[in-house]
Amino acid sequence: MAPQLEPYFKKVDELADSFIERLRKAVAIPSVSADEEKRKEVVRMGQFLATELESLGAEVQQRPLGKQPGKEHLDLPPVIIARYGNDKSKRTILVYGHYDVQPALLEDGWATEPFKLTIDDKGRMYGRGSTDDKGPVLGWINAIEAHQKAGVDFPVNLLCCFEGMEEYGSEGLDDFIKAEAKQFFKDADAVCISDNYWLGTEKPCLTYGLRGCNYYSVEIAGPGQDLHSGVFGGTAHEPMTDLMAILGKLVDAKGKILIPGINEMVAPVTEEEKALYGPIAYTMDNLYESLGSTTGIFDDKERTLMARWRFPSLSVHGVEGGFSAPGAKTVIPAKVIGKFSIRTVPDMESPKVNEAVYKYVKDEFAKLGSKNKLNVYCQHDGKWWVASPKHWNFSAASKAVKEVYGVEPDMTREGGSIPVTLTFEEATGKNVLLLPMGSSTDAAHSINEKLDRRNYIEGTKLLGAYLHYVAEEPMVAA
Amino acid sequence: MAPQLEPYFKKVDELADSFIERLRKAVAIPSVSADEEKRKEVVRMGQFLATELESLGAEVQQRPLGKQPGKEHLDLPPVIIARYGNDKSKRTILVYGHYDVQPALLEDGWATEPFKLTIDDKGRMYGRGSTDDKGPVLGWINAIEAHQKAGVDFPVNLLCCFEGMEEYGSEGLDDFIKAEAKQFFKDADAVCISDNYWLGTEKPCLTYGLRGCNYYSVEIAGPGQDLHSGVFGGTAHEPMTDLMAILGKLVDAKGKILIPGINEMVAPVTEEEKALYGPIAYTMDNLYESLGSTTGIFDDKERTLMARWRFPSLSVHGVEGGFSAPGAKTVIPAKVIGKFSIRTVPDMESPKVNEAVYKYVKDEFAKLGSKNKLNVYCQHDGKWWVASPKHWNFSAASKAVKEVYGVEPDMTREGGSIPVTLTFEEATGKNVLLLPMGSSTDAAHSINEKLDRRNYIEGTKLLGAYLHYVAEEPMVAA
Repeated sequence: MAPQLEPYFKKVDELADSFIERLRKAVAIPSVSADEEKRKEVVRMGQFLATELESLGAEVQQRPLGKQPGKEHLDLPPVIIARYGNDKSKRTILVYGHYDVQPALLEDGWATEPFKLTIDDKGRMYGRGSTDDKGPVLGWINAIEAHQKAGVDFPVNLLCCFEGMEEYGSEGLDDFIKAEAKQFFKDADAVCISDNYWLGTEKPCLTYGLRGCNYYSVEIAGPGQDLHSGVFGGTAHEPMTDLMAILGKLVDAKGKILIPGINEMVAPVTEEEKALYGPIAYTMDNLYESLGSTTGIFDDKERTLMARWRFPSLSVHGVEGGFSAPGAKTVIPAKVIGKFSIRTVPDMESPKVNEAVYKYVKDEFAKLGSKNKLNVYCQHDGKWWVASPKHWNFSAASKAVKEVYGVEPDMTREGGSIPVTLTFEEATGKNVLLLPMGSSTDAAHSINEKLDRRNYIEGTKLLGAYLHYVAEEPMVAA
Repeated sequence: MAPQLEPYFKKVDELADSFIERLRKAVAIPSVSADEEKRKEVVRMGQFLATELESLGAEVQQRPLGKQPGKEHLDLPPVIIARYGNDKSKRTILVYGHYDVQPALLEDGWATEPFKLTIDDKGRMYGRGSTDDKGPVLGWINAIEAHQKAGVDFPVNLLCCFEGMEEYGSEGLDDFIKAEAKQFFKDADAVCISDNYWLGTEKPCLTYGLRGCNYYSVEIAGPGQDLHSGVFGGTAHEPMTDLMAILGKLVDAKGKILIPGINEMVAPVTEEEKALYGPIAYTMDNLYESLGSTTGIFDDKERTLMARWRFPSLSVHGVEGGFSAPGAKTVIPAKVIGKFSIRTVPDMESPKVNEAVYKYVKDEFAKLGSKNKLNVYCQHDGKWWVASPKHWNFSAASKAVKEVYGVEPDMTREGGSIPVTLTFEEATGKNVLLLPMGSSTDAAHSINEKLDRRNYIEGTKLLGAYLHYVAEEPMVAA
């Protein structure tokens, strides 16, 4: 163990109750960003963080982001940025978190009051925002406090970026990060984001990749208005018939994308990468439990995790404009819009993916010989992100996990996206590490969200330990 | 001209204003069967008909149908049955109509008060129920009155069956007709229904066929709950993927049903039948106008009308359980239900159609190699109906059209269904004729429903003339 860690860990344990008290205060502020009427609570939560940071001697700014787009009477909550330490001989680490939360109502089915931290006898601390993302954000503040009270020198300069709109599209944040990359964040040597979860419940992980997402609409229109299938069935080209023919040819039942050119864009699996999968704590039963069924495509862990993390997938989400209610209606819809998305991975480039999709959809439509009109377009795209898990930022985190939990962390990717990750990487040009505090059972975004006491307290140790190991890593780029 | 028709026609013309006044009174009663609060108006409308018929000397019964299924506090409106004439030497004709109407509100976009008959300078009489079906029902009453006032012997015994729930599923009527077929309706020699429309606006038609409809659901389920496509895309069999593969293989873009065995069940087109299509007043422009587009499958009238009337068609109506709202949502739906229906024609038998559909859907699903679960079933079916257009019932109507309008009527079928037609045919065992009064532009079920003065007054002549020719037709079955 690095010599400074022992007193730090001891102090974290001593302060555990006060750290939980800090979380209790944070959870009690219903900082729901999606709810206009709760906007003042979001602002109050930002103020709470600012006050905590200032009381520990950090230099804090509450930076306005202007009005909320589409709701010009409403101010966006400020971004709380802070600097703790300004020693040129130390590394500077930029950490990101968010202080807003998902909506929550007792009547949604919560077993306890969502905005009252409630701890059961197994140390599960229930409350909205406990794990997403107030616990991790407070972890950084706890780490500063424990260092001060233990009399241990803080090993790095810490830059904080805590936003209040993450659960509502991070309105305004991208431009802010891009602007501050060369200003407030310009000294950052690496970035650490604690806003995701372990793959399971026992073994910590470091996350080095996320898939991107290209979301498509396929619009097919023909008649001027909806038609009666008795009167017109058989006489007119039906948009829904054409759409089904196209949506039925995008992907096979085993998940293989049938659009020519897509699979060819995928980076080959290297031996080094393959070696990362073996040790990962994950079983097919974990998959079946989360699916609520045994309808997995693959029978083994490696192929399942690779399909989730490092290969593209295509999902058809639904059809707009058709008859979607229960029962029976004999309508020929005049215009239907099929929605599907492709999860993207290295080295897929969004414009090339779009090009392949458009060409395939148009070609397949042309083959039909329909007189209807087709329009296919990308609703939005977000790029995949993959960091080097060999970078010193990851090595340091890995040592910290070993120190705190006694195991090597799983090196994981995620199938979904956390867009701010890529924004930080592109804006700062630095390595970004995803260092989760909570576990897979924390139910972020669901009812009965919780953070285990162990994950919070050991997680606070982990964040501090990570900073110590980061400070010790050799000064080489990776 | 049959000698009795001239004074009858003359009297109809003389009484035209009073017949329009009768329609005005009927339209003023908002007999909306779908609206519980209007039930008393429906009952009042039935009473109005009963009173009119009684004042002309008909024997009238208001027959209760019990409580409304699912709304047991609510009485169904009575069926108004009547007999006018009981001369054993005359034929007995059973006529059907309905006295309830579709809902209508000025704010739906009506140009005039929907329950106030408003006549423009071109003789278009606007009002809810004007054409569907109060005008035709009053046509029979007008015919009786004009005969009486012209001093012309009524040529047949007339049985009336006027219901008050047609626009809400004809609740209770089927059982009533079946029971009365051997009672009140037992003398009927033929049936005439005036509740559909000319194919166009100028040329009258007689309708001898309707398609049936088998409505299917294809349910595919896998995961225990909806999944996030980022987290699970590529790892689990997606119900929507399977469903699209199946729905994409049911019918081609040109309307050809791809389910083996279906097309083989269709009765071949005879030369006699083919000859009926040539004279029909219908153009491709009529199709394009009603489609609101030029996306018709065929370029000629004959194939278009045959596709609409005498060949089966398959329409996919929509998907339940997927994402059907505007925008983007990255969901993998846990269970999706595709809805499609097949319009059936002679000689398709519903159980055999079901069998072919089930086998094909199951076979195609099996080919996918998916671990999801499939369930395919028929939600409801209704049989096609075709009468012989050579029957004396049709010959008589044809002569009446020639007499009143100076042209041979088009012999038409319809692509949709009027279930009561088949009920009458099966219950009475007699020929059923559909003899429309209104035209294709009457906008039944839409805003600004209307009946042209010409169609109403000449239509009253037509109904009376039909009865005269029916009385004269040779007594042979056809």
